Amino acid sequence: MKTVYIVRKEHFNAAHKLWRKDWTAEKNEEVFGKCANKNWHGHNFNIFVTVKGIPNPETGFVINLKDLSAIIKKEVVERFDHKNLNLDVPEMNGILASTENLIMKIWELLESPIDLAGGTLAKIRLEETENNFVEYFGGKEPY
Amino acid sequence: MKTVYIVRKEHFNAAHKLWRKDWTAEKNEEVFGKCANKNWHGHNFNIFVTVKGIPNPETGFVINLKDLSAIIKKEVVERFDHKNLNLDVPEMNGILASTENLIMKIWELLESPIDLAGGTLAKIRLEETENNFVEYFGGKEPY
Amino acid sequence: MKTVYIVRKEHFNAAHKLWRKDWTAEKNEEVFGKCANKNWHGHNFNIFVTVKGIPNPETGFVINLKDLSAIIKKEVVERFDHKNLNLDVPEMNGILASTENLIMKIWELLESPIDLAGGTLAKIRLEETENNFVEYFGGKEPY
Amino acid sequence: MKTVYIVRKEHFNAAHKLWRKDWTAEKNEEVFGKCANKNWHGHNFNIFVTVKGIPNPETGFVINLKDLSAIIKKEVVERFDHKNLNLDVPEMNGILASTENLIMKIWELLESPIDLAGGTLAKIRLEETENNFVEYFGGKEPY
Amino acid sequence: MKTVYIVRKEHFNAAHKLWRKDWTAEKNEEVFGKCANKNWHGHNFNIFVTVKGIPNPETGFVINLKDLSAIIKKEVVERFDHKNLNLDVPEMNGILASTENLIMKIWELLESPIDLAGGTLAKIRLEETENNFVEYFGGKEPY
Amino acid sequence: MKTVYIVRKEHFNAAHKLWRKDWTAEKNEEVFGKCANKNWHGHNFNIFVTVKGIPNPETGFVINLKDLSAIIKKEVVERFDHKNLNLDVPEMNGILASTENLIMKIWELLESPIDLAGGTLAKIRLEETENNFVEYFGGKEPY
Repeated sequence: MKTVYIVRKEHFNAAHKLWRKDWTAEKNEEVFGKCANKNWHGHNFNIFVTVKGIPNPETGFVINLKDLSAIIKKEVVERFDHKNLNLDVPEMNGILASTENLIMKIWELLESPIDLAGGTLAKIRLEETENNFVEYFGGKEPY
Repeated sequence: MKTVYIVRKEHFNAAHKLWRKDWTAEKNEEVFGKCANKNWHGHNFNIFVTVKGIPNPETGFVINLKDLSAIIKKEVVERFDHKNLNLDVPEMNGILASTENLIMKIWELLESPIDLAGGTLAKIRLEETENNFVEYFGGKEPY
Repeated sequence: MKTVYIVRKEHFNAAHKLWRKDWTAEKNEEVFGKCANKNWHGHNFNIFVTVKGIPNPETGFVINLKDLSAIIKKEVVERFDHKNLNLDVPEMNGILASTENLIMKIWELLESPIDLAGGTLAKIRLEETENNFVEYFGGKEPY
Repeated sequence: MKTVYIVRKEHFNAAHKLWRKDWTAEKNEEVFGKCANKNWHGHNFNIFVTVKGIPNPETGFVINLKDLSAIIKKEVVERFDHKNLNLDVPEMNGILASTENLIMKIWELLESPIDLAGGTLAKIRLEETENNFVEYFGGKEPY
Repeated sequence: MKTVYIVRKEHFNAAHKLWRKDWTAEKNEEVFGKCANKNWHGHNFNIFVTVKGIPNPETGFVINLKDLSAIIKKEVVERFDHKNLNLDVPEMNGILASTENLIMKIWELLESPIDLAGGTLAKIRLEETENNFVEYFGGKEPY
Repeated sequence: MKTVYIVRKEHFNAAHKLWRKDWTAEKNEEVFGKCANKNWHGHNFNIFVTVKGIPNPETGFVINLKDLSAIIKKEVVERFDHKNLNLDVPEMNGILASTENLIMKIWELLESPIDLAGGTLAKIRLEETENNFVEYFGGKEPY
């Protein structure tokens, strides 16, 4: 029984800010720095979705990448691309738009559709810039 | 007389939208597509500034990269980073925030300070995403 | 009159070989090396298409990137992607599939459609690998 | 006892197709899409081989990278580079040339030589494109 | 309890050589190859530091990236950047400057400050070139 | 008459410092900053060599990339790789090891051998880091 991990990369461009209404402007700036700019800023986000499984002997595939790409596009790209993460995405309502909170939300959105397609979501990597990114294993701690 | 070209890369993250108030929402969407989203979207912009000159025999430098980096940070990064290009940048007032218009504006901002530092601005490259970018030679057509 | 250059990147994956029927196998291998392997090999090609022009004051665009992307997809990607450059592409019939010959052919395919869309094709860059690539200015010699 | 992981990247360019002789052309195209093109297509493959171990106190090395590079070149690059994965590689005979099957085969080829050189093969990453790749831990599931 | 992993990239440029005084020049060259050049050589090192934790519900952060960046700059970049790893860094005294030894030393330098800032150091990746790099989990073997 | 430009990338890792013996330590540090560190520092240099010409109708090549790669390896990589640019390279004797001076020297080294191989050296790009690099057209000013 040989588990292989397959990864598909997609991307989306979005605006956001880090801001708590229950804090003063000073407190927001102290904690969130430039990310608290009231008129928003934005990023080119890259997302890498890892699915694990035993390759199907008939196709050689853990999951068909056409299907995996379609799931990510439907659940993530269409929801977030060229959007404002704070204003345009109902799923992020009332949630601080940090990459940590975003990646946990994306896991929720992808887990079932990937399951239905016969794969198992194993890891997500979400890059905000080439210097800052988060990784998530569904809450597990492999290391 | 040997001209060398030296390039410095910097980056900034900003929000913007493409939108004309004198057009209907339909016309805006038809022309600008997803970039017309009313609540903004954003990008990680990379900027490459090329300065040309004959290396100073005393230092081996066309321009000291510390000086060039400082000029770009003062004139471009501080103005645009973690900002909304439509709302937060007076220089872009009343100008459509396309990369074409942005790179022409950045040329205006950089030309004199680089001149004062003893170099000659030769080219700017402004990347909005890894798939979309503009290049500008001050209006000239080298090819 | 301010000329701006705008660049769009697309990619395609293709098989090819370098082989002259009028040469012996030894001569083919001597000149073309591993690229002469009779059963083909392949690459992930990246193409960067540069269009120049004066930005339209109404849109801020040299050319709408949706249009430019659509032209490249129609003329290049659909023709070459997941194809054999020697067998599947009528335009390459009887032409050695070197990157030099390929980029000149791609120029012919793109020049008119870009013209019709209101832009001027200025440069193409075609990457075969990250170490090997060609650039073409329609035959001109800017440097 | 401190385990360190050391990684060496190599690459190869190859042609392949995804095709089952016992399926109709329609079925092949339905499942494998453009990858079923009968005249092949190709990719620039990147391979990252991770070896783990406790650094040798005399050299500071888990494994000498000259040795690791030589093993990958002998076992993988010479076998696959500028080849047709379906026709030119006896080890892939009768095996669908999916990246999943390819990475499992490469593990078999590398495991013993790395063992003989004093290291332990821990992970392989095989990139078909920058958007599609597989990772393999010898069948284990670290996450 | 949902653990998220956050990564920050920094870089430094340094000189080093691999050389044992208790070996002959021939033995040094046999084992360390070009890296034994007596007059040094150098690299652009990239370092990726991974911190794990449960996001703080108030900020959405595992750790504030401003703090993580400041820690890496203080403990790593200021110590190693534009330095000679063999001559200028007291912490590397008497230690062969292999990437394996370097990453273990960097772990020691980062572990406590990150702990004090409320995070848990989970992984370091240290790239010497794009082809050669090491990863370290504090000595643990997740796979 | 259709000129095509072909580019080959190679790399080398070297140590250097920027230092004038006829200046005080203070003056050296003021002008050259961290690059003046007396015990050297180093970089992974990338070099891109552009050759122009009309493709040979028999081969489809401006220049055979095997030949171009061999010339760059002989003239540049063997001379600079894993070396100290100030101490180990006779051609740099008495010359400040700035990237500007280095690229002009490399042009001298490559021009004749490329000419003999039937091509014309058109441009060199030398990257010291991903943020700092120089370009050279043999002293000409195409823009």
